[in-house]
Amino acid sequence: MVVKVYGPVYASSKRVLVCLLEKGIEFETVPVDIIKGDTKNPDFLNLQPFACLPVIQDGDYTLYESRAIIRYYAEKYKDQGTDLLGKTIEERGLVEQWLEVEAHNYHPHINTMTYHILFASLMGFEADQKLIEESEEKLAKVLDIYEARLSKSKYLAGDFFSLADLSHLPFTHYLVGSMKKEHLIRDRQHVSAWWDDISNRPSWKKVLATYKAPV
Amino acid sequence: MVVKVYGPVYASSKRVLVCLLEKGIEFETVPVDIIKGDTKNPDFLNLQPFACLPVIQDGDYTLYESRAIIRYYAEKYKDQGTDLLGKTIEERGLVEQWLEVEAHNYHPHINTMTYHILFASLMGFEADQKLIEESEEKLAKVLDIYEARLSKSKYLAGDFFSLADLSHLPFTHYLVGSMKKEHLIRDRQHVSAWWDDISNRPSWKKVLATYKAPV
Repeated sequence: MVVKVYGPVYASSKRVLVCLLEKGIEFETVPVDIIKGDTKNPDFLNLQPFACLPVIQDGDYTLYESRAIIRYYAEKYKDQGTDLLGKTIEERGLVEQWLEVEAHNYHPHINTMTYHILFASLMGFEADQKLIEESEEKLAKVLDIYEARLSKSKYLAGDFFSLADLSHLPFTHYLVGSMKKEHLIRDRQHVSAWWDDISNRPSWKKVLATYKAPV
Repeated sequence: MVVKVYGPVYASSKRVLVCLLEKGIEFETVPVDIIKGDTKNPDFLNLQPFACLPVIQDGDYTLYESRAIIRYYAEKYKDQGTDLLGKTIEERGLVEQWLEVEAHNYHPHINTMTYHILFASLMGFEADQKLIEESEEKLAKVLDIYEARLSKSKYLAGDFFSLADLSHLPFTHYLVGSMKKEHLIRDRQHVSAWWDDISNRPSWKKVLATYKAPV
């Protein structure tokens, strides 16, 4: 049974793709165009009532929310490919903590910046410059905390690459690339080394080479 | 070893308290006063650099982010007390999905309402009425999707009470109580029955009776 991943070109879906590659799980992709309104179609809403990407179908099993999907596959195939959850329950606890930090402390600011810097013209609204500046300031403060953490351990949850690191890849790629905010990463020695490490993983390079972002 | 839970009177910490009671895990609490600035003290920042509640200490192990802590204890004591993760990996996947829905679709709106309706005067800023109205409209749409889901299964992740339901308790308690927005729950038959079910659990009643909210 091949896993179907909806909307592979979008950032949130790329969390799932890089996870599936790390685990060596076969998948195929289904194109979804948010700009054209595909996520508002009844067939899509039947799979994902909140009109968000990604969604996966694995036989009869449907699952949405990228960070739920990556937890599911990391656990289901615990002993296959890269172990992304840590070896002990305590390590997994720290993976969960840093996944939550990514979701609640890191993502809101980088998401606001992505939306206003990259998607405003595409989606036909005016970018809010003040909001962009405020978000950048808040993200910088979060990255100062990351810098302190990454001076003590190679990865966020400890000395092992995990879902917590992986979850940062797609939006940070926007930040250092088309958003032209690479200095936020490069100004911080340990964050910079961490980014070089995780963004050079073959799984992530393959995702980027195969699924071109819309912006 | 008794688990220490910081800041028991606040809503996010109550996710942890109700989880520990469901699992039958002994704990003690450490008072933290956000209004007085306790979360900005160096000792607290040493435990939780983002200055947020809750934090737990369990011997030498420190963990923060409420939804990470509840996952940790639900897994560590899988066979003790109420099973909060489902029986299979597929059930756990759905628990994760609905935990993420709570975090990303439900919580942002109810959190904005809580902040502006309940905490504005206490924290000395003016409540934004337009923002409150917009958040209520968005929350209502999310609850319409919950209504459809709960017409098909007794709880969010299936026919079993889980972390996904539990995670809704503290802020929904504010909503139906001091926020005076109970109609958002009562106008929806299945959401209403679900709320009666989960909010009448002895664990939750004990949390409410023991740790009085600051508002």
